[in-house]
Amino acid sequence: MTSTVSPPDPATAAAAAERLAGLATPAGALGRLGVLGAWVAACQGCVPPEPLDDVRLVIFAGDHGVARHGVSAYPPAITPAMVRTFVAGRAGVNALAAAHDVHVRVLDIGVDDDLEGVPDEVRAHKVRRGSGAIHLEDALTADELERSLAAGRAVALEEIAAGAQLLLSGDMGIGNTTPAAAMVAAALGLPAAEVTGRGTGVDDAALEHKVAVVQAALDRAGSRLDDPLQTLRAVGSADLAATVGYLVQAAESRVPVLLDGLMSVACALTAERLAPGVSAWCAAGHRSTEPAQSLALEKLGLEPVLDLGLRLGEGSGAVAAVPVLRSAVALLRDVALLADLM
Amino acid sequence: MTSTVSPPDPATAAAAAERLAGLATPAGALGRLGVLGAWVAACQGCVPPEPLDDVRLVIFAGDHGVARHGVSAYPPAITPAMVRTFVAGRAGVNALAAAHDVHVRVLDIGVDDDLEGVPDEVRAHKVRRGSGAIHLEDALTADELERSLAAGRAVALEEIAAGAQLLLSGDMGIGNTTPAAAMVAAALGLPAAEVTGRGTGVDDAALEHKVAVVQAALDRAGSRLDDPLQTLRAVGSADLAATVGYLVQAAESRVPVLLDGLMSVACALTAERLAPGVSAWCAAGHRSTEPAQSLALEKLGLEPVLDLGLRLGEGSGAVAAVPVLRSAVALLRDVALLADLM
Repeated sequence: MTSTVSPPDPATAAAAAERLAGLATPAGALGRLGVLGAWVAACQGCVPPEPLDDVRLVIFAGDHGVARHGVSAYPPAITPAMVRTFVAGRAGVNALAAAHDVHVRVLDIGVDDDLEGVPDEVRAHKVRRGSGAIHLEDALTADELERSLAAGRAVALEEIAAGAQLLLSGDMGIGNTTPAAAMVAAALGLPAAEVTGRGTGVDDAALEHKVAVVQAALDRAGSRLDDPLQTLRAVGSADLAATVGYLVQAAESRVPVLLDGLMSVACALTAERLAPGVSAWCAAGHRSTEPAQSLALEKLGLEPVLDLGLRLGEGSGAVAAVPVLRSAVALLRDVALLADLM
Repeated sequence: MTSTVSPPDPATAAAAAERLAGLATPAGALGRLGVLGAWVAACQGCVPPEPLDDVRLVIFAGDHGVARHGVSAYPPAITPAMVRTFVAGRAGVNALAAAHDVHVRVLDIGVDDDLEGVPDEVRAHKVRRGSGAIHLEDALTADELERSLAAGRAVALEEIAAGAQLLLSGDMGIGNTTPAAAMVAAALGLPAAEVTGRGTGVDDAALEHKVAVVQAALDRAGSRLDDPLQTLRAVGSADLAATVGYLVQAAESRVPVLLDGLMSVACALTAERLAPGVSAWCAAGHRSTEPAQSLALEKLGLEPVLDLGLRLGEGSGAVAAVPVLRSAVALLRDVALLADLM
């Protein structure tokens, strides 16, 4: 799990840069679309890049013990209700995915509900009912951590086998910005006050309490935070560990990833700690309103594609950014070369 | 031409805001996508909004006398070559439009070339071969201005009759950032140094010269710049005047517009001077690298959807932003209402 991931092919990256420079457009006029198109080409090992026809989002759902300790504006019962809404195709991310032809799969990794009546495949990778309240106890046992990581890896391999050219990660779980903020704090060596945000919208008093919960979790874990696996066990969760496994596997399988908001980016940062080089396979879909997301993106050297004040979660920011990557591919692929016009 | 344009229907806007507040998402979680969806609904007079299936870009092409006076990194011969590239479907904006199902129409309004062999409909609205060098002479006669505005209006009506739900304006013309910057300076009462940018990429010495050309144009026009029609005659061009007519007609016809870079936004600013209220029908597609574009957007109260360092022109930034508006419509239209889930 801790080996280095090799980067997208440098020779293809150079060929993509050369093609970009040869397009019948003023030098540099494509801005970030030029850079993103060349990145997709390098990930694919193919110039010009192939159109991104098969894009797949996996939503990792789970509950968090801290949600019963006043860190969220919403009750934990929302998590299973939203899983049912994803399955019914009526959530925000379903609307976006339908508009942009993105395949959506939702997985119950750690929802604190049996989700009766929900299709079996949604629950096939379930690790536990709710992860531990991280300010009081570890989120996961060693065995649960291993199973969570393996679940994420297995799901990535399944989606890649099904044809995924681009993988997205999404999240659902009341309280999940608390462990995600703690994971970013652990990676960057920052105190809780610098990483903790309002999540779905807590007020000032609840924010102050949330900062205290995150700091208590960090203090409880202590030097275990120097290790990314111990970080996931102590202050993470089953759904977030599965997301980490998914991202590492995608990079190892040389499939590019478009990240979403705080949960997705906190997991990418943790994946990069586990397997240096993962981030070279990642682009950032959007800037969320959570401070820890911006801090983690900066550390990863990623600039988000969209900045629309979205804080819906679910993978929505990544799905909304898919057309921008498609724009980038279309330009590098379909614009005339200057040499052809002369 | 100077009457006030009535805004999108306030009752529909209120109903759209009410629907937005009732979606099964945390309050405010959709960020700007919520606001944009409600704006589209208000423009359509319809809640929920209809999907934006019919989106149309018109590229107004023309040459500029100043291009022969050292203001551009490229020679004027590029303008007709690019018109031919649009017709062949091989330009940057064609690639983006194909990726996002946007209809593209290119019109020769003032290209300094006969464009032999190009389809007649491209030249059907031609006003003149090249507009005047604005630092030395008026861009247009009174009659040419009238014909240019009328051409833009006629084209908007044609596209709306053909089914356009959303209109985009694009530009092509070597040297066109010079008159566009002058139009913004005229509207905002600013000196040339504050509005002039590098266009397709002039160096420091050429930028200094370009500032001098813009300032000479402003000085030559003097108090005529207090009037938007005189501004277009003195320091505009045929293609930019046609764009102004197109935008005014779209707003009068109650069809929303997605603006592009400097030329599009300078024309929207001038359209707003001519017919106050036009800007309520406009959204801003992207932030270009030209300083005058940001100044004009600020004056119009518009925040761009994308900020990708694009400076390709052609309407490319508007086309790249179309999927963001479609995301906004999908969310307001297809997400479950909280009341339906309870």
